[in-house]
Amino acid sequence: MDANKNNSSKRTIAYVEEVYRQIQQKPDIADIMILNSKGNPIKTTMEKSEAIQFAGLYESLRDKATMGLQKIDPTDEITMLRIRTTKNESLIVPDGKITVVVIQNAKDLYCK
Amino acid sequence: MDANKNNSSKRTIAYVEEVYRQIQQKPDIADIMILNSKGNPIKTTMEKSEAIQFAGLYESLRDKATMGLQKIDPTDEITMLRIRTTKNESLIVPDGKITVVVIQNAKDLYCK
Repeated sequence: MDANKNNSSKRTIAYVEEVYRQIQQKPDIADIMILNSKGNPIKTTMEKSEAIQFAGLYESLRDKATMGLQKIDPTDEITMLRIRTTKNESLIVPDGKITVVVIQNAKDLYCK
Repeated sequence: MDANKNNSSKRTIAYVEEVYRQIQQKPDIADIMILNSKGNPIKTTMEKSEAIQFAGLYESLRDKATMGLQKIDPTDEITMLRIRTTKNESLIVPDGKITVVVIQNAKDLYCK
């Protein structure tokens, strides 16, 4: 996500809108969700109640992974969590104070 | 993992050894760990105390993701969790009563 390259940029509404816009242009995207620092969905393609359910799950996974890793190796840092299920794949990207979640129609692509 | 295709096969010691052997032949593998149903490492390349730390983290992530997803969509099932960090990538594969964990030297491979 180009908007993400400059890690010091503030996660303003304009920044969130740009990240959202860029993801929308990618193929095979089933849903998009952007969470604020409290784990609440601030922009999503999902229906509200569904978004809140998933947001709770993703935020807790992000926290558990981040804190767990901190204890084991404080010099390392989570850049992405991917949850592959029989139906799809969720990508969870911590991005400063926001968390970007993309749910895509999973295809197992093997590079030849 | 060929040994994994027959999902009904019992996760015997021979099964675990075969899965372990197959993974060892793959490139860029930093560490391997196989957990039993209680989340304890039963075979690993890691040093014991490190294995126990990581096992605790992976098992808790597997449980949280599995139970979280169960509540949201009981018809769906986790097939893999991937934790990408600045240093490497951990792949966590629930496989019947065992959990197979592979830590690989991460390379961002983009298919042309």
